[in-house]
Amino acid sequence: VIGEFELINRLRAKAGLRGDRVLRGAGDDAAVVRTDGVVVVSVDAFVEGVHFRLATTSLEDLGHKCVAAGLSDLAAMGASAGEVYLVLGLPENIGDREVMELMHGAEALASRFGVTICGGDLTASNELFVAVTAIGHAPDESHLIGRGGARPGDVLGVTGRLGGAGAGLMLLERKEHGIPIEIGEALIDRQRRPVPRLEAGAALARAGVSAMIDLSDGLASDCARLSEESGVMLEVQLAEIPVEDGVDEVAALLGTTGAEFAAGAGEDYELLLTVAPEQASTVDQAAEAAGVQVSWVGKALEGSGVRLLDRSGSHRPLQGWDHFARRSSGRPHPGQA
Amino acid sequence: VIGEFELINRLRAKAGLRGDRVLRGAGDDAAVVRTDGVVVVSVDAFVEGVHFRLATTSLEDLGHKCVAAGLSDLAAMGASAGEVYLVLGLPENIGDREVMELMHGAEALASRFGVTICGGDLTASNELFVAVTAIGHAPDESHLIGRGGARPGDVLGVTGRLGGAGAGLMLLERKEHGIPIEIGEALIDRQRRPVPRLEAGAALARAGVSAMIDLSDGLASDCARLSEESGVMLEVQLAEIPVEDGVDEVAALLGTTGAEFAAGAGEDYELLLTVAPEQASTVDQAAEAAGVQVSWVGKALEGSGVRLLDRSGSHRPLQGWDHFARRSSGRPHPGQA
Repeated sequence: VIGEFELINRLRAKAGLRGDRVLRGAGDDAAVVRTDGVVVVSVDAFVEGVHFRLATTSLEDLGHKCVAAGLSDLAAMGASAGEVYLVLGLPENIGDREVMELMHGAEALASRFGVTICGGDLTASNELFVAVTAIGHAPDESHLIGRGGARPGDVLGVTGRLGGAGAGLMLLERKEHGIPIEIGEALIDRQRRPVPRLEAGAALARAGVSAMIDLSDGLASDCARLSEESGVMLEVQLAEIPVEDGVDEVAALLGTTGAEFAAGAGEDYELLLTVAPEQASTVDQAAEAAGVQVSWVGKALEGSGVRLLDRSGSHRPLQGWDHFARRSSGRPHPGQA
Repeated sequence: VIGEFELINRLRAKAGLRGDRVLRGAGDDAAVVRTDGVVVVSVDAFVEGVHFRLATTSLEDLGHKCVAAGLSDLAAMGASAGEVYLVLGLPENIGDREVMELMHGAEALASRFGVTICGGDLTASNELFVAVTAIGHAPDESHLIGRGGARPGDVLGVTGRLGGAGAGLMLLERKEHGIPIEIGEALIDRQRRPVPRLEAGAALARAGVSAMIDLSDGLASDCARLSEESGVMLEVQLAEIPVEDGVDEVAALLGTTGAEFAAGAGEDYELLLTVAPEQASTVDQAAEAAGVQVSWVGKALEGSGVRLLDRSGSHRPLQGWDHFARRSSGRPHPGQA
């Protein structure tokens, strides 16, 4: 239901109607959207003190990130992005102006991908939270990639470079770090303004990847999910992980390597994929045409679980995020188990 | 994103797959659902201390009510109910057992309407909240009824009887009330276990109603929404409001009449509709075939706003709920402005 009158009217006025799918947007009991054959639906929650802290995240950043996370799930399926719905739980210190800032960040990203924010709900609450529903479209199921399709022998790839968002968070949380300002700002931007890999996701789906997942909780955690759904073991070579510029330096402050930090850090929203080895070059070309590079970081084997291997072939312990395990703790740092 | 491993696996095991729309349910980046032509999407939030109190709402009731509210929005559009997605914010005092109870209530209602709960997200939080996404289906937009179609001259009807859910809440909040136990229990059941009018909503849509909305916040508030979206004035005769058994007695405890109480009380989840007067008898028949009675309580006129009229034709002040206006207050009583 869309309610709460005045503020909602201002939000409706701000929300752009994009494309020709949305037949009825905010203002009714429900939105009405034209489909192709199947819809792809993702829901995600973001809670202050668990997923973000307002000390290091502006409302505009928050709006951007919540929409990015929802669209990233659609990218990981290879779906075409359609609509986003936002539920906001608003404590007393978040006034109408702050809500409009959040909406501004959400709208700016939605606009970049032709996505319509076409509904939501506002409620009073004691803590700030956002629940995002993202809906994507495809002609039929055969166009979509799941987490369950990896087969033994497949190679394991990842788009872009990892660890940037986690390193950016470290820099936001620590004032004294000695990292040069240009590198620091780029890392902080990766933390504050992740960009969902929608074009790459669709291109990789067409190129025949066998399984795909977006890296929201970190390579180690998300490998574990893909491994479990596919019924394979995933072996990752730490030395092959593409590490974002400056992450080595941030990791050194924590007494670890850039690759280990990058394997445990979340929120990069890159895509992790598997593909039969004979199709890896097709995937390389498709990714390049979509403006991103795939790094081949490991392979799928018979078995279960995830192995991180260092240069010597020794196993490294898995690290990743579980927002649920850390109830009511402050914002966890990436890399914590 | 579906995460949080062990508990999620238990929830997945519990969630029934109903019908043949759901191609992929929980366990992937997103669910994949086959559509007919258009989807209808509603999102709603429920926060402890704002929408419910655990002192008077069991976790099983809460699961039921959240699903009921989502499906009621679909009923108000005349859509066929499809899937529900649940986001749960879980404070430390809500353990796995309580989550399973909530899921049990949600599943029981979903099962009754052939609906699949096919995804969600769990997160730590400081207060218990639920965000519900309900998705319905229709062949095309022309099968759906909005809030904006009422025209001057239309008659205004409502399904079922009103005030029961609000009166039930009063009884839960007050131990001493002198209401006979059988009547009290029926009212409390209306509060705890509202039933969305899915069959009636579809039948009324086919019977040619011009506008429809579900009564979540109360007749007065929801009339105001329908009036605003349609650009008409709505005139309601208090004496024509169908008042649930026992509501007169509960209202008397509060020094008001059953009809005034029923006009302000929320959570009945009945349907409010308008239709051209010459089609009112078609609507009566369609409702009866769907097992519910429509009461004709007023009409749409040129103008704006809502008028509640008593027997003498005097205006009565509007009362209704606005969850947003009462930030961080306790659970508001129905009937408060």
